[in-house]
Amino acid sequence: MIDRLAVIGVGLIGGSLARALRAAGQVGEIVGCGRSREHLERALDLGVIDRFSTDPAEAVVGADLVFLATPLSAIRPTLARIKGHLRDQAIVTDGGSVKGSVVEDARVVFGRVPPRFVPGHPIAGTERSGVEASFPELYRQRRVILTPLPGTDPEALDRVRGLWELCGAEVSLMDVVHHDEILAATSHLPHLLAYGLVDALARMRENDEIFRYAAGGFRDFTRIASSSPVMWRDICVANRTAVGDMLQRFAVELNDLADTIQRGDGDRLLEIFARAKAARDRYVDGPNEVSAGADVPPNRSSSAS
Amino acid sequence: MIDRLAVIGVGLIGGSLARALRAAGQVGEIVGCGRSREHLERALDLGVIDRFSTDPAEAVVGADLVFLATPLSAIRPTLARIKGHLRDQAIVTDGGSVKGSVVEDARVVFGRVPPRFVPGHPIAGTERSGVEASFPELYRQRRVILTPLPGTDPEALDRVRGLWELCGAEVSLMDVVHHDEILAATSHLPHLLAYGLVDALARMRENDEIFRYAAGGFRDFTRIASSSPVMWRDICVANRTAVGDMLQRFAVELNDLADTIQRGDGDRLLEIFARAKAARDRYVDGPNEVSAGADVPPNRSSSAS
Repeated sequence: MIDRLAVIGVGLIGGSLARALRAAGQVGEIVGCGRSREHLERALDLGVIDRFSTDPAEAVVGADLVFLATPLSAIRPTLARIKGHLRDQAIVTDGGSVKGSVVEDARVVFGRVPPRFVPGHPIAGTERSGVEASFPELYRQRRVILTPLPGTDPEALDRVRGLWELCGAEVSLMDVVHHDEILAATSHLPHLLAYGLVDALARMRENDEIFRYAAGGFRDFTRIASSSPVMWRDICVANRTAVGDMLQRFAVELNDLADTIQRGDGDRLLEIFARAKAARDRYVDGPNEVSAGADVPPNRSSSAS
Repeated sequence: MIDRLAVIGVGLIGGSLARALRAAGQVGEIVGCGRSREHLERALDLGVIDRFSTDPAEAVVGADLVFLATPLSAIRPTLARIKGHLRDQAIVTDGGSVKGSVVEDARVVFGRVPPRFVPGHPIAGTERSGVEASFPELYRQRRVILTPLPGTDPEALDRVRGLWELCGAEVSLMDVVHHDEILAATSHLPHLLAYGLVDALARMRENDEIFRYAAGGFRDFTRIASSSPVMWRDICVANRTAVGDMLQRFAVELNDLADTIQRGDGDRLLEIFARAKAARDRYVDGPNEVSAGADVPPNRSSSAS
């Protein structure tokens, strides 16, 4: 049970955690915080929060648990602002998609990473953002990665883990650097490729015609390019080492594909495509996919050629 | 009205056309053709075809309309086999995803592209294949591109256009080379990127772990990597000039992104991401997306970061 939860950044991620904990009956009061008063009033109207402040220092007063759900670039100034205003026993956790930068932010602001700061990352979201898009089931059957440090208080870690499990999530622990490498591969690189492809096409002379003939496969493939540009700028900058490594790996793959196609080497192409299909069918396209969600437009036309 | 339709290659594309024309009451008899007797018997059981032959030369006898729905690599041998067995007034059309190679195949086999051969490309499909995956609504509200040549018989063109319209498709005419360039951009390159990404990850040491933490965005992004490797090998080889050009363009974009990230140039990243998002939201994610299909797993978690 959390007597007072402070959510800094009441958007899809922060709003959904608030809604989930409320739905579970596990939270007393929820205090929201953000830069936009209008946005916070909307969160209040929706019943996601009970009251709000636009000042993080004020919002965290008396909170047992503080959840930072801002874009990554706001983490450091937010930590600097709440420093000295937290209760002694307050636990702070976050939902940032990159953990190395968040840990570094905490280290810079507090001199060392506080024992009751538990870096976390719920791997969930939709391409929509804002509190209107939040819903209590967002984390159900989703993975949440926590990246505790050697100095992390085990009791704080347990409480944060329990909180995510209350939301229906499956919690894993991972090393900070490893987390950032894995996410660079499965999330950050795909977003870059989708943004990059749409941008490359948008800059072509015939862009209007190109997009007109895009089929279902293109829609699926580029859906993530409709995500928040600010959020993704922050992620790419914050995780630039691991993302850079992955981009390099992928450039090698792409050069190999280009050579293979230029040579007309169908056997080798078939080998690559078959290996990729087998990996995807085996790892990704399991029974999980079917239960993945609810209301995004279904799409039967996923691979029009 | 088609008295006798011959469908060479009774899979998703061929089977769906047969089903759609049957549902429209616009076809007398449907003759299927393919290499696998077992597969054709399945098509017969499903009522997609009325009878079959494993020999294209036999299957096209007496047909008014022949639809070639084989992988691209089978087009030339199929044309060679049916040559001399077609009725004088028979119209031949195809569903190949690359038009330059199909036109070249026809030219090589017949000496010139026959006037009653109408190259076509329905931009529809799912990542599933086979006659079991076919359904009569596949082409509804889909685009079909026909790429007639200067020598194409206008009456044959009109009939093929009418046939696709009967299936609910929206038909456009396009130049062969232009078709292949547009599709390289919107379809062939995205498939290569999806296959390439999954393959790059599958070859990494930690691949098991990587795929375990892949979220909804990754599933959407890589869905097209579950498409038929044979079909995509054929497409990439057949359209290698245009695909090579697009790969080059994209490599430039990717290098630019890599530099920008390495420099930590957030402003420029934001500009690129925002431009891409605006293009996608404007062109792709319109009202069409909602009506895109029926039974593929919905996915709310499209941009977990």
